[in-house]
Amino acid sequence: MRTIVGVMGSGENGDDALLTLARELGAAIAREGWVLLNGGRDRGVMDASAEGASLAGGLVVGVLPDDHTRGASRHLDVAVRTGMGDARNAINVLSSDVVIALAGGAGTLSEIALALKAGRDVIALDFDPGEGFARYRDTEQLRFAASVSDAVVMTRRILERRRR
Amino acid sequence: MRTIVGVMGSGENGDDALLTLARELGAAIAREGWVLLNGGRDRGVMDASAEGASLAGGLVVGVLPDDHTRGASRHLDVAVRTGMGDARNAINVLSSDVVIALAGGAGTLSEIALALKAGRDVIALDFDPGEGFARYRDTEQLRFAASVSDAVVMTRRILERRRR
Amino acid sequence: MRTIVGVMGSGENGDDALLTLARELGAAIAREGWVLLNGGRDRGVMDASAEGASLAGGLVVGVLPDDHTRGASRHLDVAVRTGMGDARNAINVLSSDVVIALAGGAGTLSEIALALKAGRDVIALDFDPGEGFARYRDTEQLRFAASVSDAVVMTRRILERRRR
Amino acid sequence: MRTIVGVMGSGENGDDALLTLARELGAAIAREGWVLLNGGRDRGVMDASAEGASLAGGLVVGVLPDDHTRGASRHLDVAVRTGMGDARNAINVLSSDVVIALAGGAGTLSEIALALKAGRDVIALDFDPGEGFARYRDTEQLRFAASVSDAVVMTRRILERRRR
Repeated sequence: MRTIVGVMGSGENGDDALLTLARELGAAIAREGWVLLNGGRDRGVMDASAEGASLAGGLVVGVLPDDHTRGASRHLDVAVRTGMGDARNAINVLSSDVVIALAGGAGTLSEIALALKAGRDVIALDFDPGEGFARYRDTEQLRFAASVSDAVVMTRRILERRRR
Repeated sequence: MRTIVGVMGSGENGDDALLTLARELGAAIAREGWVLLNGGRDRGVMDASAEGASLAGGLVVGVLPDDHTRGASRHLDVAVRTGMGDARNAINVLSSDVVIALAGGAGTLSEIALALKAGRDVIALDFDPGEGFARYRDTEQLRFAASVSDAVVMTRRILERRRR
Repeated sequence: MRTIVGVMGSGENGDDALLTLARELGAAIAREGWVLLNGGRDRGVMDASAEGASLAGGLVVGVLPDDHTRGASRHLDVAVRTGMGDARNAINVLSSDVVIALAGGAGTLSEIALALKAGRDVIALDFDPGEGFARYRDTEQLRFAASVSDAVVMTRRILERRRR
Repeated sequence: MRTIVGVMGSGENGDDALLTLARELGAAIAREGWVLLNGGRDRGVMDASAEGASLAGGLVVGVLPDDHTRGASRHLDVAVRTGMGDARNAINVLSSDVVIALAGGAGTLSEIALALKAGRDVIALDFDPGEGFARYRDTEQLRFAASVSDAVVMTRRILERRRR
């Protein structure tokens, strides 16, 4: 069973620096041999991280809100069609061995919250979800990474610790 | 079809002031003739708000994470058993015409986020979910209430505005 | 916590005898003091059973596939909006203390199957879902009722047996 | 985006002929270059079809009822953890371009029914789900295959027809 790293973040296209970061993160995940899992749509952090992972030869799984593949990223290998709207956010985080969150809106915040609730480790990359999450920062269930390489190192450590 | 007001908040029992607030909010919702909907468990804001509404003669619907009623509040009239864990948080907010959030942890934050994502109005009662939600505060999709009566007045206004 | 009886059946409007049966069943459920739960739509067995129960003064809960109430039966008291499409069929049956199934298509068959899988008792009213379900008929987890009053008597017995 | 073929069937281990058939079907799916998707558990048709596909070098996706991987087949490449119990059956069939059903109980019947409801083509391999499904057999949305090679040929034709 392969290690799955979930990437969450904005579904909007406007912020080029964010999309570049997502692309780099996707590529880094693929180079580690991890499966990239995200929300599967053809926009924002989902599409960019899928593109990065796919071009780097990684396996990309998208868990779609829809019951079809219209509007899905063309960089997915496997399109899981849930037909459940944002309730699929729970599946995204449960299916991820580690969750990495980039900047985003309510969808991303819901995924961070659901991941923390489910006991998953969350790495916020160049993003602070705010004081509401302070207690999880204190216990280090929520960590902050300043760069893609930081996030990858943290992910490795979390996976190693869990293996022991 | 009756108006449904969702009440979200901590699933823990420690904070007496919070539970009293939840009980008062439940009673106020019942007195308005609204159905109270929450996560249905026998703990924290769920149990207290259900108790308040039930004692005031209101109808209480609990949307449970489990596929059974063990661990459900005894103040529920209708126990919806989802068997879906925290994915049921999405149902809680979609089923609510207005969402009122009290202090809570990751579960509550996920419900606030899912509600905002789904276009629902959210009233944070004596609680600030933090800077991550700032953009929704700016558009007034997320409002702050200082008291139960404030929250009720805001809810009335949101419902009236929508009716027009 | 009130007893919930789920009513499943065709979402189509063509068959008048079927709709009359659904209306009578809804009324009978209400007269027993049970909550009627169904898929909540404004068509077929869902709408007719809701109408019967509502006119007889019962409480009607509809668990909708959509994240809104357009297309919902106007005879619902409580509209649970799941936004999950037919995955909500699992919720329908888990939330029902007893499931009564009338004639229907694939949706109804999925609900019978999910109910049996989940250990719920199913009463098929004037309907045979076919040989695929034979093993559940043999263990009496699936029973056949010829009339509304038969179905009500069977439901009472199942509920009593479980209480002991 | 890769073609996904869903394999449904009994979660029990007793029937050796059935498990051999599932293993052969899994291998055949892998040899066609299709992704095998199933319910992901370490038993019955799920485990056997995953094993067959995996040994033949295919990619195997399991959509688990649980929020963890205990009890999952060790032949999965990707474990989607839904935490949704049998509501995940809806995801299984929505995510499959074609569904192939082997003999099974209520879980399998629910998947056949949900697939037909969702407009998916279903091939019943060496299995008849009974008269309840007759109308779908008449329209050829439900077909019968006598052997693995029959099922593969039918699947190819369905996929080709859809591409046109």
